Amino acid sequence: MAKRDLRHLLRLPPGEPVDLAAHDPAATPGAPGGKHASLADAERMGKELAELQERLWAAGTAGDRRRVLLVLQGMDTSGKGGTVKHVIGHLNPSGCRIHAFKAPTAEELRHDFLWRVRKELPRPGEIGIFDRSHYEDVLVPRVRHLVPPAVTGSRYGQINDFERTLAEDGVTLIKCFLHLSYEEQRRRLLRRLDRPDKRWKFAPSDIGERALWPAYQEAYELALAHCATPPWYVIPADRKWYRNWAVGRLLLEHLRELDPKYPQPRLDPAEWRKRLLTET
Amino acid sequence: MAKRDLRHLLRLPPGEPVDLAAHDPAATPGAPGGKHASLADAERMGKELAELQERLWAAGTAGDRRRVLLVLQGMDTSGKGGTVKHVIGHLNPSGCRIHAFKAPTAEELRHDFLWRVRKELPRPGEIGIFDRSHYEDVLVPRVRHLVPPAVTGSRYGQINDFERTLAEDGVTLIKCFLHLSYEEQRRRLLRRLDRPDKRWKFAPSDIGERALWPAYQEAYELALAHCATPPWYVIPADRKWYRNWAVGRLLLEHLRELDPKYPQPRLDPAEWRKRLLTET
Repeated sequence: MAKRDLRHLLRLPPGEPVDLAAHDPAATPGAPGGKHASLADAERMGKELAELQERLWAAGTAGDRRRVLLVLQGMDTSGKGGTVKHVIGHLNPSGCRIHAFKAPTAEELRHDFLWRVRKELPRPGEIGIFDRSHYEDVLVPRVRHLVPPAVTGSRYGQINDFERTLAEDGVTLIKCFLHLSYEEQRRRLLRRLDRPDKRWKFAPSDIGERALWPAYQEAYELALAHCATPPWYVIPADRKWYRNWAVGRLLLEHLRELDPKYPQPRLDPAEWRKRLLTET
Repeated sequence: MAKRDLRHLLRLPPGEPVDLAAHDPAATPGAPGGKHASLADAERMGKELAELQERLWAAGTAGDRRRVLLVLQGMDTSGKGGTVKHVIGHLNPSGCRIHAFKAPTAEELRHDFLWRVRKELPRPGEIGIFDRSHYEDVLVPRVRHLVPPAVTGSRYGQINDFERTLAEDGVTLIKCFLHLSYEEQRRRLLRRLDRPDKRWKFAPSDIGERALWPAYQEAYELALAHCATPPWYVIPADRKWYRNWAVGRLLLEHLRELDPKYPQPRLDPAEWRKRLLTET
């Protein structure tokens, strides 16, 4: 990994406690400049992302099992949905598998917490995007005391096993924590209330969750520290343009490293050309 | 439906035999002009499509069961994948459910042919896009004599029942046949052979399918005639810019007619504003 890679700047070092307060949600580490320059850079990235995705997909059709899974976690209004939309804007959606995890259904609760996650994994050649993920199961239940602490504790281990299995099966996992400030969430919730076309997004329960902000930050710190392989990236998310640029850039760096190749079919183009041109 | 609607121009009238040869694959019915004008018009449509989709999604969160399912059928290289990419470009992919149906797997073959289709249906508020669909099961098996004609015959009825059930459950089905000419397919296959980065898409079996072109056209004519409610739209597909514009336009016309509304939550914005501003 190149020293100047964004991965290098944003990754949490494994084996160390996580202190989210030490990360500024309004920072813009590694950005190619301000908003304008970053939007322009994201635009330029788009072309390369699209080509790398096509190569990944093409390789998948020829037996390459590799695929990518982008996991987005973050507090309400941190912009998980907006990030999905931005990233997909660069890609061919047919090669993507997007899933937004909601509160578990009655059926999902009857299974182990990874059951519903396994069903939504990207297939070889695909780029998967999770808006929330199996990490919800070490956050909400812990903060709301829905399960004993020992259960959350054992889930960290299950997640690590699960993610190691994924890696061994060719899945490159890119875990992004969209790091929003308490103040910026307030501004975003106020905006939802003020705009009649956004008010439907406002849920009074959002305020209740907000009161649990410190408990959520702590639950995140534990989850990020306990499940540190592959590493988490902490994405400052108060500025949408930075958040979008950074997630796109991380995806690009991982795809470049995978460097998938177009399959070279064993056929003689000249022969098939001739057949196409001489058919009746 | 307004007389000048594109739906009016492209729909096959129910109850009549279908003659695909009577439809020019290079025509551009209803286009706002040539390529340049149509691309500009598609750009303008994008904003309205995005807003209508958000309203559909928002209504879905408040109990509105309505959703849209865009079905794309057409011969190889007719541009189903390209159309998906274009249409999604206007939408929020998180509210879309895209599925590309391949040759049925062993497990899928053990079930009735609609089993795998039901699993991929859009949920309330979503826009589903099928790249191929249950119609494959009255095309390939018929052309390749994999099932007796009586089976295909009974499947038309099953499809009609299925699609009526969908309609009754709030699904607006938009069925598009991407109508490509034999000559244009030849050009597109030659291009795949000529470009090293596209050659992986070329399958020698494509040539075998091409030899069955008349049988496929006939199978399509029967399927389109037998399953005419909701109606099929025949999209001339030799010109990509027209195909993209037309499918986007059809989606727009259907969404306008659905006219989904943002839910009006029963809450007092002023009260919640105050709570957000006075919290510690």
